[in-house]
Amino acid sequence: MLFRITSWGESHGDTIGVIVDGCPPGLPLDEEVIQRELDRRRPGQSRLTTQRGEADRVRIMSGVFQGLTTGTPIAMMVENKDARPADYAAMKDIYRPSHADMTYDMKYGFRSWMGGGRSSARETIARVSAGAIAQLWLNQEYGIEIVAWVRQVQNLIMEKVDYEAIRRDDVEINDVRCPDPELAARMATLIDQTRKNRDSLGGVVEVVARNCPAGWGDPVFDKLDALLAHQYMSLPAAKGVEIGSGFNGVTMTGSQHNDPFYVKDGHIRTRTNYSGGIQGGISNGMPIIARIAFKPTSTINKEQHTVDSAGNEVTLAAKGRHDPCVLPRAVPIVEAATAIVLMDAALRDRGQVGPREPGARPKKRRLETG
Amino acid sequence: MLFRITSWGESHGDTIGVIVDGCPPGLPLDEEVIQRELDRRRPGQSRLTTQRGEADRVRIMSGVFQGLTTGTPIAMMVENKDARPADYAAMKDIYRPSHADMTYDMKYGFRSWMGGGRSSARETIARVSAGAIAQLWLNQEYGIEIVAWVRQVQNLIMEKVDYEAIRRDDVEINDVRCPDPELAARMATLIDQTRKNRDSLGGVVEVVARNCPAGWGDPVFDKLDALLAHQYMSLPAAKGVEIGSGFNGVTMTGSQHNDPFYVKDGHIRTRTNYSGGIQGGISNGMPIIARIAFKPTSTINKEQHTVDSAGNEVTLAAKGRHDPCVLPRAVPIVEAATAIVLMDAALRDRGQVGPREPGARPKKRRLETG
Amino acid sequence: MLFRITSWGESHGDTIGVIVDGCPPGLPLDEEVIQRELDRRRPGQSRLTTQRGEADRVRIMSGVFQGLTTGTPIAMMVENKDARPADYAAMKDIYRPSHADMTYDMKYGFRSWMGGGRSSARETIARVSAGAIAQLWLNQEYGIEIVAWVRQVQNLIMEKVDYEAIRRDDVEINDVRCPDPELAARMATLIDQTRKNRDSLGGVVEVVARNCPAGWGDPVFDKLDALLAHQYMSLPAAKGVEIGSGFNGVTMTGSQHNDPFYVKDGHIRTRTNYSGGIQGGISNGMPIIARIAFKPTSTINKEQHTVDSAGNEVTLAAKGRHDPCVLPRAVPIVEAATAIVLMDAALRDRGQVGPREPGARPKKRRLETG
Amino acid sequence: MLFRITSWGESHGDTIGVIVDGCPPGLPLDEEVIQRELDRRRPGQSRLTTQRGEADRVRIMSGVFQGLTTGTPIAMMVENKDARPADYAAMKDIYRPSHADMTYDMKYGFRSWMGGGRSSARETIARVSAGAIAQLWLNQEYGIEIVAWVRQVQNLIMEKVDYEAIRRDDVEINDVRCPDPELAARMATLIDQTRKNRDSLGGVVEVVARNCPAGWGDPVFDKLDALLAHQYMSLPAAKGVEIGSGFNGVTMTGSQHNDPFYVKDGHIRTRTNYSGGIQGGISNGMPIIARIAFKPTSTINKEQHTVDSAGNEVTLAAKGRHDPCVLPRAVPIVEAATAIVLMDAALRDRGQVGPREPGARPKKRRLETG
Repeated sequence: MLFRITSWGESHGDTIGVIVDGCPPGLPLDEEVIQRELDRRRPGQSRLTTQRGEADRVRIMSGVFQGLTTGTPIAMMVENKDARPADYAAMKDIYRPSHADMTYDMKYGFRSWMGGGRSSARETIARVSAGAIAQLWLNQEYGIEIVAWVRQVQNLIMEKVDYEAIRRDDVEINDVRCPDPELAARMATLIDQTRKNRDSLGGVVEVVARNCPAGWGDPVFDKLDALLAHQYMSLPAAKGVEIGSGFNGVTMTGSQHNDPFYVKDGHIRTRTNYSGGIQGGISNGMPIIARIAFKPTSTINKEQHTVDSAGNEVTLAAKGRHDPCVLPRAVPIVEAATAIVLMDAALRDRGQVGPREPGARPKKRRLETG
Repeated sequence: MLFRITSWGESHGDTIGVIVDGCPPGLPLDEEVIQRELDRRRPGQSRLTTQRGEADRVRIMSGVFQGLTTGTPIAMMVENKDARPADYAAMKDIYRPSHADMTYDMKYGFRSWMGGGRSSARETIARVSAGAIAQLWLNQEYGIEIVAWVRQVQNLIMEKVDYEAIRRDDVEINDVRCPDPELAARMATLIDQTRKNRDSLGGVVEVVARNCPAGWGDPVFDKLDALLAHQYMSLPAAKGVEIGSGFNGVTMTGSQHNDPFYVKDGHIRTRTNYSGGIQGGISNGMPIIARIAFKPTSTINKEQHTVDSAGNEVTLAAKGRHDPCVLPRAVPIVEAATAIVLMDAALRDRGQVGPREPGARPKKRRLETG
Repeated sequence: MLFRITSWGESHGDTIGVIVDGCPPGLPLDEEVIQRELDRRRPGQSRLTTQRGEADRVRIMSGVFQGLTTGTPIAMMVENKDARPADYAAMKDIYRPSHADMTYDMKYGFRSWMGGGRSSARETIARVSAGAIAQLWLNQEYGIEIVAWVRQVQNLIMEKVDYEAIRRDDVEINDVRCPDPELAARMATLIDQTRKNRDSLGGVVEVVARNCPAGWGDPVFDKLDALLAHQYMSLPAAKGVEIGSGFNGVTMTGSQHNDPFYVKDGHIRTRTNYSGGIQGGISNGMPIIARIAFKPTSTINKEQHTVDSAGNEVTLAAKGRHDPCVLPRAVPIVEAATAIVLMDAALRDRGQVGPREPGARPKKRRLETG
Repeated sequence: MLFRITSWGESHGDTIGVIVDGCPPGLPLDEEVIQRELDRRRPGQSRLTTQRGEADRVRIMSGVFQGLTTGTPIAMMVENKDARPADYAAMKDIYRPSHADMTYDMKYGFRSWMGGGRSSARETIARVSAGAIAQLWLNQEYGIEIVAWVRQVQNLIMEKVDYEAIRRDDVEINDVRCPDPELAARMATLIDQTRKNRDSLGGVVEVVARNCPAGWGDPVFDKLDALLAHQYMSLPAAKGVEIGSGFNGVTMTGSQHNDPFYVKDGHIRTRTNYSGGIQGGISNGMPIIARIAFKPTSTINKEQHTVDSAGNEVTLAAKGRHDPCVLPRAVPIVEAATAIVLMDAALRDRGQVGPREPGARPKKRRLETG
């Protein structure tokens, strides 16, 4: 990897932070660029998400000099302000079902039980911060636009989206971050009602990255879609990843599913995009499309059967403020994850093959005719 | 990574091979163990798969001495015998839709056009060979059993499987590798008919890994499910990955989806397994369950619209022998991919945390009561 | 790598810090353990080193819970207190000879010119902090003792040391950290005089690591001595590395240089140790011995010829407080660097091959006779 | 790493080989380019080196299509022809002093004892093959010339070399590969005499790389000199590495050792080159200079005291053909090792920072005045 992310921090520790290694020098960067993305990730934005009042003010501690990245490590840090460990003390010996409590104990022999410790979704602060830098660079160098949105909450699904046109403004119009206002309203009602039931919901985030040049990604082990799948599946609560047609593509025949090539303005394009912008593990210049399934939040206030660390069967009704549905907050996280992968792929490709022209189609590889 | 795979070779080059670094010393290994898995992957096993008569005899070239692995790199190689480059010459300037032809040209400026070159599914010989070693070690050290099968071909789906009981023998009973004989017969008919139509089919492979100890996988970037997703999505034609409940899980509420813990024989287990054996990125001792969607094969003999490398719109009807459905052959490949990931996770965990007891539940972390 | 170090920070930025990934869980750790090593590295300990009053109080920000390492990333940070950027403003457009000023500008197009920015020796705070953890673990698990000392300052050389016996207390008896008191006094006089001459001195640090088990290190690319050389040569001002006999060994014949094996108390040992504890890239259980050459500090207050960033030839007499001789402070840095390499080698070996017995000789591999 | 080397093979196994990942596409490459370097490495070139008649014909197995590199893995292999395992059978239970026999047994529990197995110097076939590709690319892209020579055999030292002028032809004029013919003759006599004494010699290889652009290498952990030290110290028998002034530099003061900058033809240069072309871990455009100490060969035919694997004290006089002095053959190996590091640094730098102008000085970073 050339663009590398290393993070630290637990939910209720002092700080959460990230080091970004390998960022090109000379990129204009300040804390506001990062903060803007963190604010989108922040809980407490609406009644649909957790009510913790985390300020999450980011501080850039290195790697920027006189407003420009220096090419050396960029460290960013957020101080934890609003921790209420008492909410968790009751759960310190009890394993929340489908949470990381038990597996951390099994792996490490003990765990930082406050707020989930390292397994907390607060770790995504690191990724959103790093992703903000990646998005900035990708946009500046190639005009790349990455937009994610809530496609599905439980059984409410937004089937149709114009991948060429959808913009972040279309998504940010409501708290749910579903670009269909009517559907968003129904999702909001469902989430609100579920919260009252002390239960939780899952869903699907969809993401598009436009204007990626053809040629990013490696042929075998580090296919671009494999790198995306790795990154997406490492997000908290992720249980599935699709590129392009995904699981639905298997119901088609090859002649239906193949994306016919044609030439437009001297550039090769495909008429359909079941490939999701990636063929043979390498970007083809079409919009990159992915979907990530997030399971319903495992920490719920409803009473559940479980065991404690001594092996006694107990019941648990979690205290504390928990997201009834992470989907709206997952949107900026997915965008950040996408950007991190694309930026590394861009730098690796530039390293091995040399520079590509800004914009979706590499200059040298432009067709002579068309 | 401690267990590392590096591969080489093109479809119609001289050889395909792989180096396995980091294998523990003292593992009994011979070519027959590898060959057995390669034979399952081999085309031409039935009329359902490609008719190329690839012998694919593996040769272990290093890393084994007097029948035992030495701990140093294990190189394995297969010679390509039955290449018919003439079948491909007609396609050398034409981009097969949804294949890697165009993206390789865009990335590298040119490509080895014979048989797909590096993008050929013959690369999976490397993974199956390496995976055979990993399966051997995982089974010897922990009694781990990895079994994959064809869950879906187009719209034919095998819904129910007993993850605790299914064995490789249940799968190998027919050419399709679907453990439901009646469904397998319908799949076979469908594949055969599609081949006659010069078209192709996709589907879903499901896989279970039993007896993994709790504690494998890292908390954030290298979650066990993220490593699996990376590996699966790097397989040719993969478009989607699910762990446990996957995309279906999003239609449940948290209280439905959470897997209640209970204690049996002094070990913590879950009553359901929507988590697919992984919680917070770390194995929990339950069966690990995943599904991989493979798109319909892109190379078909049916005529399609496309462009050539000069940008002219042309039609193409591929010549040569092509799998109408890769699913049956994907079964051993998915098993190998799973084993490669688990073995690396096992070694990394042993490196950081120390040894675990063979079998599903680590000794040191056994409950005192129950 | 399993034990991984990622650092951030510039000389005159807000903070310097490090993330340690891969530390085993359950290691008792607090800030005092780290601080003790940082205090040894700290400038201003004597008139022999730079007079900046850097407090360098370390703060552990993650990865420790209730006094024990959790197994997740350990972040440590030091705030910069005593920066005097004005001392450097005069040099911002002038390239100090043999410093990183020019090469950073060439690489990145510009640089953080205050105090050398990222190229400052303050980066070694990161390594000393990480190394303190590694030393703690290595000592607890294997009884490993790592001791470094100043072997040479300019032409003053301490030729003889008892590698089996030398202890940190023998080194810490004077400011120079040379265990020969009489020689240390002469070194101190020389350093002091050189500082008055506005000049600087180099020298050699020697280090021994005792009680390493046989078996650490990989056979080819990641030989244990190669990993040490990598780490040592990445220290500021390092220009040379020797293992065991080093450059002097080339004047011997094979029959003189070979270390004869013999058996003592059931363990294989060597009568001489020209190998420096490493044979074929793998530790052999004897003391590991290395020497690192540090050039004279490049920033001196004496006037020198150089150029500015516009290419004008200018003269420069650096302002500010600069170490006339880094050697005494390099001692804890070299110990830390050694520990970081050994700990990673220990974890990797445990991952691939399994656990070894504490102490110098692995249980399983103990001779039956002797 | 972007330019990655993975190798396999034991001394007396079937084959020795290497995979080169990350090579840019479009580089003209054939087996002759590789073979030329292998022939220089080959034993049996003269009476000064081992008399084994290894043909060592290389075969490129992938990654080259129609005479050009494809950008995908390049696998190269040499078959072992002239193995005489009987020479080694006598030593299979006896640990050769200062060889890897004992440490391999300690690490892995057993070893491939024929010809040193993986610890054999035959592994350098892999590095020489990979290095030939790197040298070709570095020369084509930047006009880089890498030349190594024998600087020292035992006490015979070639003190003065013109680093700007020395060429490979100056080195290849004699079997010893020392560019001073008179000294070379004395070295040859010494080596020959030592062989007759059943003993062996060590020495120092010096290497220069000219025309590297300024800007290669990373500031901290992956300093260019650290990467070189890692690579050099991983060569068989290496015990020391120096960059620029190395250990001798420590006897100078800062004002003597600092390399004054000046401007020539619009480019910044240094009047002396004690830095060895690297400052702050980054190349400065001056010739890169390094020296590597190789100990006397450990396998000698003279009788030595040692132990066997059961712990009995025994005497050993090795049979078989062994190099009395590896230095002449180390020359092409050091050149290859240098090229591998520089090429990776070049690609990484291009990835992060973008392209540099061919030749020693980057275009964008050229001074405006001078």
